[in-house]
Amino acid sequence: MTRQELISLIRERKSFLCVGLDTDLAKIPAHLQGQPDAAFLFNKAIIDATIDYAVAYKPNLAFYESMGIEGLVQLKKTMQYLHSLSKPAFTIADAKRGDIGNTSKQYAKAFLDPQGDFNFDAMTIAPYMGEDSVTPFTAYEGKWVILLALTSNKGAFDFQFLESNGKRLFESVLEKSKQWGNENNMMYVVGATKADMLSDIRAIVPGSFLLVPGIGAQGGSLEEVCRYGLNNDCGLLVNSSRGIIYASDGIDFADRAADEARKLQQQMAAAMNL
Amino acid sequence: MTRQELISLIRERKSFLCVGLDTDLAKIPAHLQGQPDAAFLFNKAIIDATIDYAVAYKPNLAFYESMGIEGLVQLKKTMQYLHSLSKPAFTIADAKRGDIGNTSKQYAKAFLDPQGDFNFDAMTIAPYMGEDSVTPFTAYEGKWVILLALTSNKGAFDFQFLESNGKRLFESVLEKSKQWGNENNMMYVVGATKADMLSDIRAIVPGSFLLVPGIGAQGGSLEEVCRYGLNNDCGLLVNSSRGIIYASDGIDFADRAADEARKLQQQMAAAMNL
Repeated sequence: MTRQELISLIRERKSFLCVGLDTDLAKIPAHLQGQPDAAFLFNKAIIDATIDYAVAYKPNLAFYESMGIEGLVQLKKTMQYLHSLSKPAFTIADAKRGDIGNTSKQYAKAFLDPQGDFNFDAMTIAPYMGEDSVTPFTAYEGKWVILLALTSNKGAFDFQFLESNGKRLFESVLEKSKQWGNENNMMYVVGATKADMLSDIRAIVPGSFLLVPGIGAQGGSLEEVCRYGLNNDCGLLVNSSRGIIYASDGIDFADRAADEARKLQQQMAAAMNL
Repeated sequence: MTRQELISLIRERKSFLCVGLDTDLAKIPAHLQGQPDAAFLFNKAIIDATIDYAVAYKPNLAFYESMGIEGLVQLKKTMQYLHSLSKPAFTIADAKRGDIGNTSKQYAKAFLDPQGDFNFDAMTIAPYMGEDSVTPFTAYEGKWVILLALTSNKGAFDFQFLESNGKRLFESVLEKSKQWGNENNMMYVVGATKADMLSDIRAIVPGSFLLVPGIGAQGGSLEEVCRYGLNNDCGLLVNSSRGIIYASDGIDFADRAADEARKLQQQMAAAMNL
């Protein structure tokens, strides 16, 4: 999906909500547990319930990999389902990959290749290994790298704020990466729990899309994220995972997920004046 | 595998060689291409040919993931085969994972859990997200985190050498991580192409094992790695991937892989005075 298509989708749905599919067989409703394709059935119900309020879905690879090979089968079915819908959605492999050039090329093929099992629009990438670990992910037309800049967790303070030549590490990552990609193929992860940093980040990447996890279960505020993060093209994808998909563990889980997604969509529409 | 078991294995085989299973269907010998289970059959032949000269095997996850779900099936068969052998080997998932705590826990389950599809001894982890992204991997008894410190690629110079408070980033990673694990559950990736940095690294982590990729195709020297990296318990696992597994693309590929592995093993035995 191109930048222009993403912006149009956001305006049309009046939403920049990304639903995180952190699907955990221990947390899905009891009536689904033990069924064949339980993870896929759960995801399908969540997608059906939220697609009018969300523009993006972000399966977290760890949750599928932890189910073994069967988990990847569930992920493939989920992606096939998303691709089959008449209502489009931007899809993100939350994979946090990154390795030497010839290896990153293989990861890009695994998740972004239109002929592959998954065919995501975007994937999250860790910046520690630098340029040649990142650029192979920009090789697919209309696909995106989402580079970790400032993460939502406590451990973000261990290295991301280390200052060198007057810049914090996450600022160096932002600056440097502008040589590797552009607003049409690179976004950045910025945790909602660090919303006060968004103006510093916007000073470096004013036009780029930011993927913002950390509202809901992790404690970030949507209002603050909008205040500092919105730009003229919206420029945000705000993710909620547990707050939506586990809003209820009963048979009403999909309805409750829709309620939570709708609430966020309405706040987002207001923030964009749409 | 515990530290003591690993050290015993190294002394017994007079080797600290790790064979990187970067198995690429486009590069394996023509007579295997197109066969069912081609990747597994290739790996099995490489393992059989090299196990007397190597102590560790390191499948690079990207190469399996790029084959789609079928690639993970091939990886599972490879791991089952390694676990079935009477000759033990240390197994490393070269996965470069790392995410917020609850997600890293799922990645640890995916690759380290003895009940899982893979049951590796160790996995490589990227440090960018800090403590809570790393510590879940230390939760499995006898299993290991191998944290990226200084990588072998050109992009390593983008961030890993940034200096803050008198320490380069890779040195901060080493220092900080000593609070998260110890010599019995944490190793570090140090690229052979940066062998001159090994004395600085040994000053911070004198007793830790280092996983050293980058000899062979990437240009690092085994002799230099030994000079600066060996400690009293050996303390090194030196990886070669392409130099061994693609030594020939003919029907003699396994014999030629054995030759290359034996050459390295002999240099290693000499370096350890064994």
